[in-house]
Amino acid sequence: MNYIGIDLGGTNIAAALTGEDGVILQRCGQPTPRTPEAVADSIAALALELLARSGEEVPYIGIGAPGTIDPAAGVITRWTNLDFNDVPLAELVSARTGLPVLLENDANCAAIGEFAAGAGKGCGSMVAITLGTGVGGGAILNGKLYTGANYAGMEVGHFVIRQGGRRCTCGRAGCFEAYCSATALIARAREAMEERPDSLLWTLAETPEQVEGKTVIQAAQQGDGAAGRVLAEYTEALGCGVTSLVNIFQPDVLCVGGGIANAGEVILAPVREILDREDYAKYYNKRTRLCRAELGNDAGLIGAAMLRQFRAEVH
Amino acid sequence: MNYIGIDLGGTNIAAALTGEDGVILQRCGQPTPRTPEAVADSIAALALELLARSGEEVPYIGIGAPGTIDPAAGVITRWTNLDFNDVPLAELVSARTGLPVLLENDANCAAIGEFAAGAGKGCGSMVAITLGTGVGGGAILNGKLYTGANYAGMEVGHFVIRQGGRRCTCGRAGCFEAYCSATALIARAREAMEERPDSLLWTLAETPEQVEGKTVIQAAQQGDGAAGRVLAEYTEALGCGVTSLVNIFQPDVLCVGGGIANAGEVILAPVREILDREDYAKYYNKRTRLCRAELGNDAGLIGAAMLRQFRAEVH
Repeated sequence: MNYIGIDLGGTNIAAALTGEDGVILQRCGQPTPRTPEAVADSIAALALELLARSGEEVPYIGIGAPGTIDPAAGVITRWTNLDFNDVPLAELVSARTGLPVLLENDANCAAIGEFAAGAGKGCGSMVAITLGTGVGGGAILNGKLYTGANYAGMEVGHFVIRQGGRRCTCGRAGCFEAYCSATALIARAREAMEERPDSLLWTLAETPEQVEGKTVIQAAQQGDGAAGRVLAEYTEALGCGVTSLVNIFQPDVLCVGGGIANAGEVILAPVREILDREDYAKYYNKRTRLCRAELGNDAGLIGAAMLRQFRAEVH
Repeated sequence: MNYIGIDLGGTNIAAALTGEDGVILQRCGQPTPRTPEAVADSIAALALELLARSGEEVPYIGIGAPGTIDPAAGVITRWTNLDFNDVPLAELVSARTGLPVLLENDANCAAIGEFAAGAGKGCGSMVAITLGTGVGGGAILNGKLYTGANYAGMEVGHFVIRQGGRRCTCGRAGCFEAYCSATALIARAREAMEERPDSLLWTLAETPEQVEGKTVIQAAQQGDGAAGRVLAEYTEALGCGVTSLVNIFQPDVLCVGGGIANAGEVILAPVREILDREDYAKYYNKRTRLCRAELGNDAGLIGAAMLRQFRAEVH
């Protein structure tokens, strides 16, 4: 059987036809219109195009969407980007296509995608974290997506690693996100630049505003002390948070995605060293495998297509 | 249908016959013998006695045991208290009774018990934490016990709340357990006594060695400044950790058990205040209910009896 997955973003709508294993067979896309009706029209058109190309029936259309989602109702409760409030997207798309529609949060779709066809393929439980503007997360536990009772679970950016520490956007102090988002890394690098006028960061980025995550990593790799200290502090906090998540979940796989993770072992090796030392199950035969997410931007698209299999019964 | 649950402890073996809802209908018990064969004999005798009293068949015997358990194999891998190594307890008891035997970690049984018949009755997901010598935990997620890929999951005592903080018995620094176990509370109270010779703690407990968790609470309630500060630091750390667990799991219920939790709202009210302020889902209609565990020592016994229904398919 083939599946159709949709990744609804603020700029583009991506659509894919996949096989049973989540491998993408066909793709198409469109810029995102601005109204609920027009978004539903676009999604329906993309889905029907893929259906025509499929040559066989598909059982449903899976949609991953940003903002606050009510998966049981198929409603986007709140999406500030397009000012969507209580948009019954599943119903709108279903009416246009005659197909059942499953709607899910895009971060959860990305976790399902990695579980079904990426870093977690073939395993029983996986925790995915994403190091971007914030720190996001998703989990597939006992083979099913875990969302919590109110669909707000797995906010792994907002468990505290330093009580009373740095102020987080959520209002708490010392959150994992306040130390381990790309935003946090960049903010610390800017502070370090101001303190060290001789830092290589001034050469790689002319102004503090131009510093990106990769600038810090590049400067550290070239031996810059200030950048090295910022990066070491970052990987220590990441190792601390990742090890805590492993001690809580002991999943088969913990995969790390997002821009910062693209740097690969520069980031993951020191985290793994901390994990090897501090994992509560360090003497067990079966331990969590720490790795990078594999699917990049396709994870959400694939996860949307595979929604029915991996979503727990909706409450 | 009736069920039989066994709670194997270092001193006593408790056994119960329960109804379908986990309500205890009959009880019996024996002191714990010292060898695997004798333990199996005792468990079998207790189970057969309850079976005779039951008046109807039971489908299996559920056993909660301490130490490291391999639930799939039905083996106690390691239990230092009785120096048990790789004891195939399920097989030993099954051979003596002709009944299937399910073996599970006792903390997981306690979580199942609270979920089936106590604080989590009727809900979809629950996280249980126990504040005792250490900080233990268990979780029922999407209706099933979650143990992690290697049965070592939910070590919620060992996620870090203060990176670089107090040394924990596990080797990490700053673990939840290092601040929120009864042991940690008592250790801090002893330090406070040494610093404050005028503390009421010296009246309530003649020596630092005699301080218990309830001594600290009692002194704080009677207005002792030193005890009050220790207790405030304790509940702040507990509020921090509990809120982090809520942000990760967003369960229907988070229940708190163990000796310290018996103090009730003195402990839970300040934790709830932090949770109400810092819960990522604080504006959601559906929020986690924070409450005390309800079943005390019976939780493990009831959970053992209800094992089959709430355990995920064993790997």
